[in-house]
Formats: sequence, structure tokens, C-alpha cells
Amino acid sequence: MVVSEDPQPVMEGDAASKKAAKKAAKAAEKQQKKAEHKAASSQQQQTEEPDFSAGLYGVRKLIQSSGEFADRVYTDVRDLAVGLDGKEVWVRARLQTSRAKGKQCFAVLRQTSSTVQMLVSVCEERRVSKQMVKFVGSITKESILDVRATVVKTASPIESCTVKNVELVVSEVWTVSAAKPQLPLQIEDAARPEISDDPEALKIRVNQDTRLDNRVLDLRTPANQAIFRIEAGVCRLFRDILTQRGFVEIHTPKIISAASEGGANVFTVSYFKGAAYLAQSPQLYKQMAIAADFDKVFTVGAVFRAEDSNTHRHLTEFVGLDLEMAFKNHYHEVVDTIGQTFTDIFRGLRDQFAIEIAVVGQQYRVEPFKFLDPPLRLEFPQAVQMLKEAGVTIGEEDDLSTPDEKLLGRLVRAKYDTDFYILDKYPLAVRPFYTMPDPNNPKWSNSYDMFMRGEEILSGAQRIHDPDFLTERAKHHAIDISKIAAYIESFRLGCPPHAGGGIGMERVVMLYLGLDNIRKTSMFPRDPKRITP
Amino acid sequence: MVVSEDPQPVMEGDAASKKAAKKAAKAAEKQQKKAEHKAASSQQQQTEEPDFSAGLYGVRKLIQSSGEFADRVYTDVRDLAVGLDGKEVWVRARLQTSRAKGKQCFAVLRQTSSTVQMLVSVCEERRVSKQMVKFVGSITKESILDVRATVVKTASPIESCTVKNVELVVSEVWTVSAAKPQLPLQIEDAARPEISDDPEALKIRVNQDTRLDNRVLDLRTPANQAIFRIEAGVCRLFRDILTQRGFVEIHTPKIISAASEGGANVFTVSYFKGAAYLAQSPQLYKQMAIAADFDKVFTVGAVFRAEDSNTHRHLTEFVGLDLEMAFKNHYHEVVDTIGQTFTDIFRGLRDQFAIEIAVVGQQYRVEPFKFLDPPLRLEFPQAVQMLKEAGVTIGEEDDLSTPDEKLLGRLVRAKYDTDFYILDKYPLAVRPFYTMPDPNNPKWSNSYDMFMRGEEILSGAQRIHDPDFLTERAKHHAIDISKIAAYIESFRLGCPPHAGGGIGMERVVMLYLGLDNIRKTSMFPRDPKRITP
Repeated sequence: MVVSEDPQPVMEGDAASKKAAKKAAKAAEKQQKKAEHKAASSQQQQTEEPDFSAGLYGVRKLIQSSGEFADRVYTDVRDLAVGLDGKEVWVRARLQTSRAKGKQCFAVLRQTSSTVQMLVSVCEERRVSKQMVKFVGSITKESILDVRATVVKTASPIESCTVKNVELVVSEVWTVSAAKPQLPLQIEDAARPEISDDPEALKIRVNQDTRLDNRVLDLRTPANQAIFRIEAGVCRLFRDILTQRGFVEIHTPKIISAASEGGANVFTVSYFKGAAYLAQSPQLYKQMAIAADFDKVFTVGAVFRAEDSNTHRHLTEFVGLDLEMAFKNHYHEVVDTIGQTFTDIFRGLRDQFAIEIAVVGQQYRVEPFKFLDPPLRLEFPQAVQMLKEAGVTIGEEDDLSTPDEKLLGRLVRAKYDTDFYILDKYPLAVRPFYTMPDPNNPKWSNSYDMFMRGEEILSGAQRIHDPDFLTERAKHHAIDISKIAAYIESFRLGCPPHAGGGIGMERVVMLYLGLDNIRKTSMFPRDPKRITP
Repeated sequence: MVVSEDPQPVMEGDAASKKAAKKAAKAAEKQQKKAEHKAASSQQQQTEEPDFSAGLYGVRKLIQSSGEFADRVYTDVRDLAVGLDGKEVWVRARLQTSRAKGKQCFAVLRQTSSTVQMLVSVCEERRVSKQMVKFVGSITKESILDVRATVVKTASPIESCTVKNVELVVSEVWTVSAAKPQLPLQIEDAARPEISDDPEALKIRVNQDTRLDNRVLDLRTPANQAIFRIEAGVCRLFRDILTQRGFVEIHTPKIISAASEGGANVFTVSYFKGAAYLAQSPQLYKQMAIAADFDKVFTVGAVFRAEDSNTHRHLTEFVGLDLEMAFKNHYHEVVDTIGQTFTDIFRGLRDQFAIEIAVVGQQYRVEPFKFLDPPLRLEFPQAVQMLKEAGVTIGEEDDLSTPDEKLLGRLVRAKYDTDFYILDKYPLAVRPFYTMPDPNNPKWSNSYDMFMRGEEILSGAQRIHDPDFLTERAKHHAIDISKIAAYIESFRLGCPPHAGGGIGMERVVMLYLGLDNIRKTSMFPRDPKRITP
């Protein structure tokens, strides 16, 4: 419980909060019954002594758009400030915590990430009765309330709330939507910092499955409110930057007739009387859009991978930020565009989401993300050299293993002071058949990966746009030409040289913030073991 | 063929163009063979007389990013103008049409939607040989060329090109990517206006399946280039307008564990050892985001409907523009927001896409889209009244049939001069169980559809946010409560009153432009009979 401004602050453990929850449950049940009896509950309470707060508290009638209270103006919690001192306001917010003690009830109201303290204390003049205080003390946590209150400047800042210099002295309280008494997790537990001076606090953890099973509650933590706003920012920046550079947004189908990449790792769909597949990538469609003269395209949408990978960075469904671009002479025209897009995204996040990044940092260890402008571009042999110097045994045409990539990220960071870099010119042997070979050295290819904090977040290449050469390369890879005939055919209509890449959105957000699991940056993650909620 | 500036203009029919295609095919084959023999083809041609153009034409070596021609600057076709008169430029564009005649070859180059005439004529001074003119005449239509040319002011405007006041007098021509000789459809046929003074021209039609089977070619028409840029605009405007109003973009899973709307019309997916479904709507997830304090959310993404509907306006996969919003007292707060969003989108399209709209209008009958600000909102009984007055037999609690909707659109247009309107307060009986009933009259509900040119493009409602009332309504609809337990449960954690809706993006674009088929506004449409390309 985060009610340190409460006259008698108590740090509750699990047992205590269960007890409290039970108590609250009972109270709430009682209150519910009462409310039911009294219908709109605006009549006098059935208590021994007369209730001079009657009509000023209770359960608000289901908001069904009756036209009632049409001219009531609500103030946002984040706007409560000393400028409103002495003013009366209506606030709609959740009850985060409450503690009734005799004639007083202290509580914290929360609206998205903003919190404010409220005080309900018996006062005949303000028509706040004992019964009303009791009612407020019985409201279940996470219920949504309508509160009429006077904004009052506090003597000293309330450190546990985001609104520190004022509190709300309440005159009217109505439950708009009641939460059930026994919540499957407590917001204050789910929001607890990973680092804390209090070793006891660190023991109370909400494990990931509990979080995800109860995602509606989990998403209410300040860190999650911030993470998904940052995520929306990544998508917006990606689109805006590319639109400004003349890219056209397209939409590619998710239901496809053939598994273009050989049929492995692809989900099958029953399609009327036949079968279809879920697209593992929009690549073919982006390339078709290029062949169809759209010149520069991007698409944001679901990508599906039927990989049974249960790791911190794999999802079976994720959001792909994909782009493809025709170029004139050299695929570096595209690499530079993508690199600059990332730099612009990082700058945008840093400048526009400083508050959200700080909020995430209050719960998780967030190291500021470092980047260079223009971004660093290394060639594959340089990376191999750096790894060899660090003692890694690696052949010059081997692909990088995941640990190699992580190590390389640290080496690059130490040497170049950047968390983002481009690794260019991968060995031809480790890339897909459609990758354009390097014209000067058949060992290398015109392909690249991009990394954030040592993890791959984009893979891309110049694609072969010549149908005969593409056929030759496919044969070299022992690919059944008949199965990719449509793909090859699409280059027989005239197609400009082009390159592109696909970005895993959730990875970008995870790695930008330095989080340890991709499930923290997918609102409703899908993995081999989870398709709910 | 659109080469009316050719000295001897010929309007070719199908037979003629087949013949021409065959001829071109032969020539191209010959040329290809030649090119192969000569590798980079920059050597002297093997003809009787010496070729003084040697090294100035041929097939350009596959662009493999060798670093060659790194400093060559290309001019976009749309930028060719009298200001460049006399200047030499490089242009990369497609050969749209060509006609060689003796010592001259007239051709049209196209880059996205811009076209320019080019002239290759024998001229010793400019080192253009007979052989070079012949080569250009043999290049297959839709091939991509690199052309070095002098910009020359024309004596009279070239009406058949978008660049009217200059043409290109060519000194160098290279094939960058050759199209195959026999194209499955001709761009000029696919681009032919629906209305024409020439009855012969109207007979040459490319039917829709041919278009869709060869979408890469079909998408190259000016109308399609414009349609999908307008479509990108609709998405951008939708997102920008809502972001400015404080909405947060979210991403909802497409793979779901249960078919929330009863299991009809849902695609099944094999999910590892189990089964899953493709989401028919992001509604549940939008509502969860509202319950999770995101307040106002939108999402843009694929939506799947396993309906065997083979109509002009149904797709099995489409792009949903979905939004959901918590409100304080009345769902009209949401209706007004959605209505204003539409008005802002319409205004944005009109102001930012005037050129593209005009281009679409050159091929299709496009009536300007009319809208009011604020938009018109009618109540259902008013609509029934209007229909009755027009002679339709309809009960006051009946849903509108599709013909009724179309008629109503015409009646509304005649009476209010708008192609967009909101129809509010649908009969409760015709809406899903989660729809909030009207508090004042149990016959109606807090739900609405929105229409463009008499067709529904959005359906939405205030959702019931009270779990007990929701259960009651589900029972009333004879829905198995156990199957929607998770949905109902999500409202037991405190949820604000909210409303929202889902928009079919392709429908918005189709109806804004007044097109007759949704397959014209889906880049790669999916219907019960089509999952390719």
C-alpha cells in the first residue's frame, strides 16, 4: 500500500492485504446489498442515527446515457494543481487505496498514471457524515468513483502521489463501476520497482503469467501505461518519418495461398473448403508493390511465426514494421534510409517521451539508449575480427550465434558508444536465396541486420530482381522452383532494383527501454503456450 | 496506345496490339540473345555498317550495387518542365509505348503516374545510329530504362502525356529491367476511362479477375496509383486526427482462443497441437484496453470474416479502423468524436488529395463526396418515417435491408445534401447482446451505424459495462454464458462507461470515391474465391 501520507502509514505484506481484501469484500457486499435495496441509493441510509450526507454518496445509477448530469464538468487528476486551491471540482478516477480510521478516510485516486490524495472526514458543515466515511472505506480498490471535492493546498508535498501539492477534500462520492473485492493481483505489487531499498518489498512479486492472465489489471501500472504509449510513439514515428520521405503505406494480406518460405513455421488456416496459411512476412507483397511502381512502401501489421520458441524475445504473432524501397544504383541508398529512420525514431522517443521513459525507469532498470547520427555501419568481417579479438572462435563465413550477437553488442558499445548499429555484408551462404550476392566478392552478400543492445531487430537485403538470376540462386539453394514460380514470375514484368527489411516492433520497444522480456511490450502476447486473454 | 503525338497516330484494337506484341516479342528475343552474347553489351554491335552509337545503348548490367555510376543524378519525370529546356538529364522510367518508324522512334516513358514523350532519331552529331533506333523500337513495353536525354520544349502541348510542354531527345538508352514480351494485360486497356466518346474503345475491357490475377500490372494504372495513395491518406488521417484527440494506438491479437461471437463466420487456425481462431473484430481487446485505463484507443489492422458473401462490398480479410472511448455521461460524446473524425478525414482527403481524386476521376465516374460539418445525425424512427414516405413497407423495429439503406442514402442526400450521415438509436432487438439499451425506451438502444453514399461503413454502440446487466442481456439473447465468461469477467475489475465502433477501411475508400467494387480498393483482395496473388 502506498498510503504513506495516511496518518498511520502501514506497509502491508501479502497476508495483511488478503485480510484487508476480505474485510473490504465483506463491506462491499454489505454496501452492494444496501445499494440494491435502495435502488438509486439517493435516499436516506437505514442507520440508527440520521444521516446528514444522504444523497451525497452511494452507488451511482448505471450510466446508460440518460442525459443526467449532462453539464457536469470533470477535471483530470493530472490538472489538479495549486492554481485550483479552494476550487470545487468533479473528478472521475479509480480508488487506488483507502484507509478509514474513525472519522476520517484517506484514499488515493488514480487516473491513468496520475494519482492524488483524497480525504473524507466527518464534518457537519460540509455534510459529510460518519456513514459516508464508512461507505468510502468500504469501496473496493480499483472501483471507479465520481468525486466532488475542494482542492486544498497541502502543507508538505505528498511524495507517494504524482499530484504532490494539493489534495481533494471530499463532499460527495459515488461509485460509477465497482471492482470485485478479491482482485487477482494488487496494482501496487505489480508496480513495485525491481530495485528497492526494502528487501521485504522485493519478495512480493507478481509473476509474469499472473500478470498476463490478468492483463487488464496489470496494464494499469504506471510502467505499463507508459510502455504502451511509447509503443504507439514508435509506430507513429516510423510511419511519419517514412511518409515524409515519400513512402506510401500499403496493406498486405495475412491469409496467403502458399507458404512462400518453404512451409516450415507456418500456421495453417481452414479456408472454406480448402486450406490457406498465415503470412510469415509481407515481403512478397512489398516487392510486388515495388514492381507495381509504388517506389517506396511501408506496412505495419501482424506477422505470424509458428516457431515453438519459448524465449524472452520470440512471439508467434507480432507487429511487423516493414519497408521496401526501389533504389537507383546501390542498396546503401536503402540502408542509409533505414538507418536514418531509426536515428529519427530514437531522437523522437527521447524528445517526445521523456516523461514516459522516466516512469518506466521507476519500475525497471532503464539505461538511456545511446545512438549515433549517422548510425554506425560495420561490415561483417569487422564484426568477426572484433569477436576473434575477444576470444571467440568463429569462421569468417559463419552466421553469428545469439551469444555472439550479444557480445558483439557489448564490444560495439564499448568501442563506439552506441546501442544501435548496422551490420552489413553478411556471408551469402547464411542468407535466403533471394539475397543479392556482392558483385565484387561471391562470399558476401548485399544484406544486413540491424541491432539494438546486441539483439537483432531488423533483417534485410537487396533482393534479386532478375527472374533468371533468381531462378539460378533458388536452384543453388535446392528450392523447388515450381513452388516459387509465382514469386519468380512477378519479376518478369519489369522491376527496379530494390531492398528493404522487416522490423519487430515489440523488440524495438523492449530493447529501447532495456526490458528483459518481449511479453512486457506486447499488450496481449501470443506464444506457443499462450493465446489468452 | 496513347501515342497520339506520334507522326502517324494509330488507335490499335486487340488484334493489332497482339500482332505488335508478337513483333516486339521477336525483336526482344533477338535483342536478348544479342545482349547475352555480348555480356555487358557495351561493345560494338555486330551489324553490317559501323555503329557510331556503340556503348550508348543496350542492356545494362544487372544492378548489383557495384558502385558503378554512383554519382549519376536522376531527374523525376514529374519534374521535367520548361525550366530544364536544353538541359541534359538522366531519367529512369518504364517504356509505356513506342513506335519506331524508319529513322525515328517515338515513345512514352512513365514513372508512377507521370508520363513524358521521348524521341530517338538518327543523328550522327548526337551519336544516335540506325541500330540504336532499332534497339529502342524492340524494347518490350513496361521495361525499365535508363535514359540520357536533352529536355526540349515542344511546339505544342503533348496532350497524351502528363508532362506536356517538354519532351526528351535521347542520346543514351539502357534497359535496366526487361518486361516479358507478352504481357497478360495492357496498361492502356486497364487504364481506359469507363466513359469515352469512342464506342470501340469501350469494348476493350480488362475484366476484374484478369486485373487481380495480374495485380502488379493492374496497379500501375494512374487510377490505381492514385487510389492506394488516397487509401494511405485515409489511414494517416484517421490515426493523426485521433492521436491529436488523445487516443492511444494499440495492437490487438489476430489469433484468439475462442470465437467470441458464437463461432459462426470464423476461420480456424491450427495452433501447434491445438486450435485457435482468427479475430473477427478487435472489440474485446479494445474494451479491455479501456478497462485497463487507456481511456481512448484506436487500432488499425487485419480483420477476418469467414462469410461466404460474394458481393461487391464483402471481403474475407479487410483492414479495420477501430476505436473505443470511455465517456463521462453520454455515449453521444463518442458519437460526436467519431462523426467529427469522419468530417476531418473527408476534409483532409478533399484538401490533400485533390490531384489523386482527379486522376481516379479520369478513369471512373467520381461524384465529389458531400459532407456536412458537424455531420448529420438522424434517429432510427426518422429513417423509418422517411422510408415509409417513400413507399417502403417497414416495421418500426425492423432492421434496414441493404436496399433500404441505399434508398435511405438517396433520400438523405436529396433532403440534406450530404453523402455521410449517422443513424442513431437502432432497435435493441436487432443489435448484439452487449449493446446498451436506451434508458428511456426499451425498444431502442444506444447504438448507431454510419453511412457513406447509402452503404454502412461503421457499426458501433455504447457497450454494457456492468457485468450483471451484461449477463442478463446475454441470457435474454440465449447465449451460453459459459462461453463468454471471460468477456463478462473483464468488467468485474471496474470499467468506465464506453462506446466505440469499427470502420471498414476499404469501404471508406470505395465509397468516398464512388467506386463500384471493394476489390478496387484492396491492394490484394481476399474473398471466398480468391487468396492469390
